[in-house]
Amino acid sequence: MTPEPASATEPTAPPLATAFAAVRCASCRLIDGLSPEDCQVQSMPDASPLKWHLAHVTWFFETFVLERFEPGFRPFDTAFRVLFNSYYQTVGPQHPRPSRGLVTRPDLARVLAYRAQVDERVGQLLVQRTDDAALAELVTLGLHHEQQHQELMLTDLKHLLWQNPLRPAYARRWPLAPVAPQPLRWIGHDGGWAGIGHDAQRDGAFAFDNEGPRHRVHLAPFEIASRPVNYGDWLAFMDDGGYRRAELWLAMGFDWVRAAQREAPLYWWRESTSDPWRTFTLQGDVPIDPHTPIAHLSFFEADAYARWAGARLPTEFEWETAARGVPLAGHWADRGAFHPLPSGHASDGSAQQLFGDVWEWTASPYLAYPRYKPAPGAIGEYNGKFMCDQWVLRGGSCATPPGHVRASYRNFFPAAAQWQFSGLRLARDVD
Amino acid sequence: MTPEPASATEPTAPPLATAFAAVRCASCRLIDGLSPEDCQVQSMPDASPLKWHLAHVTWFFETFVLERFEPGFRPFDTAFRVLFNSYYQTVGPQHPRPSRGLVTRPDLARVLAYRAQVDERVGQLLVQRTDDAALAELVTLGLHHEQQHQELMLTDLKHLLWQNPLRPAYARRWPLAPVAPQPLRWIGHDGGWAGIGHDAQRDGAFAFDNEGPRHRVHLAPFEIASRPVNYGDWLAFMDDGGYRRAELWLAMGFDWVRAAQREAPLYWWRESTSDPWRTFTLQGDVPIDPHTPIAHLSFFEADAYARWAGARLPTEFEWETAARGVPLAGHWADRGAFHPLPSGHASDGSAQQLFGDVWEWTASPYLAYPRYKPAPGAIGEYNGKFMCDQWVLRGGSCATPPGHVRASYRNFFPAAAQWQFSGLRLARDVD
Amino acid sequence: MTPEPASATEPTAPPLATAFAAVRCASCRLIDGLSPEDCQVQSMPDASPLKWHLAHVTWFFETFVLERFEPGFRPFDTAFRVLFNSYYQTVGPQHPRPSRGLVTRPDLARVLAYRAQVDERVGQLLVQRTDDAALAELVTLGLHHEQQHQELMLTDLKHLLWQNPLRPAYARRWPLAPVAPQPLRWIGHDGGWAGIGHDAQRDGAFAFDNEGPRHRVHLAPFEIASRPVNYGDWLAFMDDGGYRRAELWLAMGFDWVRAAQREAPLYWWRESTSDPWRTFTLQGDVPIDPHTPIAHLSFFEADAYARWAGARLPTEFEWETAARGVPLAGHWADRGAFHPLPSGHASDGSAQQLFGDVWEWTASPYLAYPRYKPAPGAIGEYNGKFMCDQWVLRGGSCATPPGHVRASYRNFFPAAAQWQFSGLRLARDVD
Amino acid sequence: MTPEPASATEPTAPPLATAFAAVRCASCRLIDGLSPEDCQVQSMPDASPLKWHLAHVTWFFETFVLERFEPGFRPFDTAFRVLFNSYYQTVGPQHPRPSRGLVTRPDLARVLAYRAQVDERVGQLLVQRTDDAALAELVTLGLHHEQQHQELMLTDLKHLLWQNPLRPAYARRWPLAPVAPQPLRWIGHDGGWAGIGHDAQRDGAFAFDNEGPRHRVHLAPFEIASRPVNYGDWLAFMDDGGYRRAELWLAMGFDWVRAAQREAPLYWWRESTSDPWRTFTLQGDVPIDPHTPIAHLSFFEADAYARWAGARLPTEFEWETAARGVPLAGHWADRGAFHPLPSGHASDGSAQQLFGDVWEWTASPYLAYPRYKPAPGAIGEYNGKFMCDQWVLRGGSCATPPGHVRASYRNFFPAAAQWQFSGLRLARDVD
Repeated sequence: MTPEPASATEPTAPPLATAFAAVRCASCRLIDGLSPEDCQVQSMPDASPLKWHLAHVTWFFETFVLERFEPGFRPFDTAFRVLFNSYYQTVGPQHPRPSRGLVTRPDLARVLAYRAQVDERVGQLLVQRTDDAALAELVTLGLHHEQQHQELMLTDLKHLLWQNPLRPAYARRWPLAPVAPQPLRWIGHDGGWAGIGHDAQRDGAFAFDNEGPRHRVHLAPFEIASRPVNYGDWLAFMDDGGYRRAELWLAMGFDWVRAAQREAPLYWWRESTSDPWRTFTLQGDVPIDPHTPIAHLSFFEADAYARWAGARLPTEFEWETAARGVPLAGHWADRGAFHPLPSGHASDGSAQQLFGDVWEWTASPYLAYPRYKPAPGAIGEYNGKFMCDQWVLRGGSCATPPGHVRASYRNFFPAAAQWQFSGLRLARDVD
Repeated sequence: MTPEPASATEPTAPPLATAFAAVRCASCRLIDGLSPEDCQVQSMPDASPLKWHLAHVTWFFETFVLERFEPGFRPFDTAFRVLFNSYYQTVGPQHPRPSRGLVTRPDLARVLAYRAQVDERVGQLLVQRTDDAALAELVTLGLHHEQQHQELMLTDLKHLLWQNPLRPAYARRWPLAPVAPQPLRWIGHDGGWAGIGHDAQRDGAFAFDNEGPRHRVHLAPFEIASRPVNYGDWLAFMDDGGYRRAELWLAMGFDWVRAAQREAPLYWWRESTSDPWRTFTLQGDVPIDPHTPIAHLSFFEADAYARWAGARLPTEFEWETAARGVPLAGHWADRGAFHPLPSGHASDGSAQQLFGDVWEWTASPYLAYPRYKPAPGAIGEYNGKFMCDQWVLRGGSCATPPGHVRASYRNFFPAAAQWQFSGLRLARDVD
Repeated sequence: MTPEPASATEPTAPPLATAFAAVRCASCRLIDGLSPEDCQVQSMPDASPLKWHLAHVTWFFETFVLERFEPGFRPFDTAFRVLFNSYYQTVGPQHPRPSRGLVTRPDLARVLAYRAQVDERVGQLLVQRTDDAALAELVTLGLHHEQQHQELMLTDLKHLLWQNPLRPAYARRWPLAPVAPQPLRWIGHDGGWAGIGHDAQRDGAFAFDNEGPRHRVHLAPFEIASRPVNYGDWLAFMDDGGYRRAELWLAMGFDWVRAAQREAPLYWWRESTSDPWRTFTLQGDVPIDPHTPIAHLSFFEADAYARWAGARLPTEFEWETAARGVPLAGHWADRGAFHPLPSGHASDGSAQQLFGDVWEWTASPYLAYPRYKPAPGAIGEYNGKFMCDQWVLRGGSCATPPGHVRASYRNFFPAAAQWQFSGLRLARDVD
Repeated sequence: MTPEPASATEPTAPPLATAFAAVRCASCRLIDGLSPEDCQVQSMPDASPLKWHLAHVTWFFETFVLERFEPGFRPFDTAFRVLFNSYYQTVGPQHPRPSRGLVTRPDLARVLAYRAQVDERVGQLLVQRTDDAALAELVTLGLHHEQQHQELMLTDLKHLLWQNPLRPAYARRWPLAPVAPQPLRWIGHDGGWAGIGHDAQRDGAFAFDNEGPRHRVHLAPFEIASRPVNYGDWLAFMDDGGYRRAELWLAMGFDWVRAAQREAPLYWWRESTSDPWRTFTLQGDVPIDPHTPIAHLSFFEADAYARWAGARLPTEFEWETAARGVPLAGHWADRGAFHPLPSGHASDGSAQQLFGDVWEWTASPYLAYPRYKPAPGAIGEYNGKFMCDQWVLRGGSCATPPGHVRASYRNFFPAAAQWQFSGLRLARDVD
């Protein structure tokens, strides 16, 4: 078939189709410079192959959009229904998660063909059914879902490259400009009733179901730090015996430290005990920069640090209240550093880097908001069924696509997880 | 030595000395009829040998009371400082928990001698220093601590005897009187500000530190069930495919079900799939009685049941509010059944068996109350360091010593734990 | 570029250079039709990625040939010294075996470039130093080493593809011609002194060190079966409860059966218990053909079958004696079936398929022959250090390159290993 | 009750009845001074509780003797048939081995009552049926079986007490008389045909089935060391980096060393790296005596030492040939040391301590002798089914009852086993 040349009067694509194309394209750009091998391997059960991510987000559109909205729907490949289902029991069986990396066929090329075909078909639907609110809602959910996987592609890739003794880099070196140290200041909040959860006025139209229902929470007065804890702070904690002092740790956390004889965060290493610490990044191996927000902490580490500092983690409600009205002005994945960056002084005295750079562990377990109800059917499996033994992180990171996160956004991971760009910001009570 | 006959004018023992003697004696009575072998073995890492329990609670008094208050203190045996320390890092090293059952020396007889000597010495202190508030406070803490271990002795013993294919009984058979079924009714609460935490007026002088600080929580209107879920209810859940329907479970819970191919609670068994279910108790093997509150559920099971029933677990704040002013009128360990018992109709329509019979899982993760601060030093390791990935249970059980529990009492276990007498009571929102 | 036509006067390549080129080329031909992904993944710790095999055999030539014989030697990439060392402690550290599949860089393309460069450099040495016996010896060892890895590439690939629920095929379907059943006959041997081990007259110049020193063994009279046990025989064993009858198994073997609830050999499967068994091959999924020699047995299975059949496994000495003078006439990897094939009637009554088709488990633990001494240095790590808890297999398989095996050839695997093409042939005592 | 004085005319007990009483009594004497707790606990899956040993050997007599020979046989307790069956599949199911220590009921007292009743009943049979050869044969087997368990009781107890940080002693301290060092001499043997296996003339009437059939083996000339390797030798090996030099070890052995970071044999310890090594014994903690035969080696350690010493382990055939005619003159369990003892100079230049003190690892895998056939039925499960991946040890130890071992006796353990009193003696080829 010969495509028709684009007419000068060609109608503009609908905005959702444009957004769809942009997000889908961004996923593929992430594998620029990576080999099929890089995209195939799963470095641990918590991680997935990049090829799987690329296929799974496509499966999401095929299953939840095309199968429902496309007349005469036929799947690209029936086998993909099982292979690329992550955890949707309602849809059917799943290939076991720890074995995702063992499936070499379909190969990357075929997964990219799968993407192309689904892109084409969803794109047509979006052009044809611009008024279909149900379609738009599911496509929008799929795009935010895909952005979450874009972040996971980066963190899973980092963990994979770390397995390689050659410490290969994914991206080119970022401009590490010297930055003046930022003293930590405490920013006070009065407490009282706070509105919590997604607010379409403030946060835009879309939110995940776990960001609502919006409700009120009564807060005591508190103070929150003006900046995240940085690598220099962390070295002080380590120098003070932080990893050896049981009294600083949750019991489960100290067991975790001892079980693996941990003495530094994930991705830190040094040649010998007399050498300085270095850290592995997606730009390869680099020295520790003290003014950079610290990343790759477990909740246990964040919690122990806060206790050592005579402070505590903020609750997610305190965090959200502090972030109200703060611009989304940190460093996101589009910066290309894929590592937190130090930031300059905020002239107005407001909190810095609440958004971007590093996710911030909070003191809040990941629970349903009052009267939360998951959606019916498979889509309802998105968030609710994980509300057990995980902790909320807020604010996004240097691996998060720009525009993905908002003040009400709730990320969540188990207390031992370290492979996300997870750091912390201190809070404290006011007497 | 011939003891002098008690003189008619002998002074009455101080009340705390009497309480001390009573609680200490109760621990020893629990091993009546058990062999040294029964007291030696540890059936799983979560459990401890009964001998270890008897020694550890004694170590608590020796370490925190005698060492501090007794002039010229000398330990009974210096080796016990490590052997019988549970988890107090501040006191020094601990013998590894999973290896407690491997320590055959000291034997039971020597542990009982240890108890006797410490009892004698603490008893003397209590007679001599009746005005010492610090002493009284630590002894009181030690007694409540010992009562907690009395309950664990029963649940650990039950788990041990269950390992024995002969299914031996610990106690004699209880009077299983037929009881009329109790229909489940919903009891409404208006919500609003609720006082939460230990209230010396209401709950008596003593509380663990995790029951405070007392503070206000704002509740939405809710309803709570008039009775716990019972075995008959559970059979209906099982008959309805409860253990096979993924949509009823937390993701982590369904993984837990599948990993061990679970199809019934702990201690249930049947000869074949065509036989009726039976259950193992501390009275040996018995048939399932449908009107008895169900026990030995994990949090996962309790949560899945509530979802199946179209309800939810109460929060610990709702539970405490519902229990305000309710008499402590369930079945406790002194009943000798060591199994929940069905209860008759409450004439006044109030909630039944909130206290005793079975601990009730709540929807609340075990967290610090606002401004909670652990005590300084080793005593501060009692509660705070476990505030991670555990869930609150309320109300006490058939294995709890009478008088130990109050409305503000917070028990806590990981979501997968089943070996406590843990059941549930439903709650629901009011529209 | 147009290659120049070979001049009529071009000198002939030395025979070893020709052999070198042929064996090296055969390794690369094995990945025809495979993707980089297929060559990257390691399906279990016992297996290695195909990319790793291709690199490791090249590392062998680089380390043991080029580094020693090439003037001004410089390695292709210093990192490869560790990455592609299998187990030669004397050479230096090794990348941990279970993590071989996690190394995505170098990718396949770079490994092929590594091969090309080493091929070029070794090829030049072979042309320049045709008289260097030490060089020739090491290159010859390297070629036999590479042939061993060619077989492992096929068996590791089969195990990998088996992980894929789509059951993909590696090769095209083989001609499954109907073959008349071969009745099992017993072929007698008189016993007496037998010469065991490599005999340059009989077996050709090359042998691995574990095939010597040649020595005498005194054998009792015995009989050996005319053909290997086939799939039809195995079905009879299964139908007779073979996998459920403890008395047929070594204790360790029956534990192995029960631990994984085994009821058939590796790669067997069926839709349901009422469906016929099928088997996965490198040609994809096929029905069971009863006349084909059975493969993928553990030693435990082979041993249990022999006991069930009222016979026993031959010792490796009996096997070698029976194979003396028998032509190497089975099906090898060059046949392209990569699966054992049934064979027709041997007109002369001699034993069939001693060579090729399936390796045959023997009753002999893998031990040093009397006065065996490993070579000094790293080369000495080739065989001797594995002489513990492994069992000897003889004869080669459908995955073995033709010409690689001889009557004195000793293969060895642990008793539980199934992923080789391992079958058995019965033997028995003569009264 | 006053027992009646033995009448002068009382008939003498038959010799087998006397032997039966003596062996049975010896088992019970082993627990003198031990508590029920000491007899209850299982320290690892390879070990069993002493109580279990006492019951299992009794079960053997009840099952294989009483059930067959006693008219109107009724079991002491039907539950014991499963509880105390070790591994006899033909008899019926077994309680899982790793859970033996979890069975607290029957307690020790009841097991002793079981012993007493079975002793009484077997004793009566032996008096009544003195001519019954089949009875005599099974009782004799049962007695040798019981003696094997007597040795296991000591080694399992040692492993249990080692778990206790107090390092308790089982027996009183032995007379550690200073002994002059014994230089190692080499004793030559000519080789040629050797008769191997049980020889009723030489070894007495009884042997286990695995000691036959007697057959000829052709040996090359060899030399064997005049004494076992001792602790002093072992220190020299350690000082020479023995545990760090890969080239000395089997590959599987070096993996074993590294997996647990081993640097000394089992039961060795030292306060710090600057302190001298000490060792735990059944007499408690003692310093290393250099002239004592070394014990508690794995096969891996014995094999590595021999390679370091430029020698090798003897085959079991060489060992048996060297032991032919040597008196059973080492230190056995009746010595009460339960630890190897140094021995003085042998005036006649013959090999010392071939018997007693330490079992000696040989270079021989544990295999059936030619034409070996296990007995039919359950008794046939005694030895044959363990002939896989174990190695033969010869000569008995300081924990073996005197009279139990002979030159043809074959003990066997897996290569990693250390908890037996296992040492080694060097051998070498003669050029």
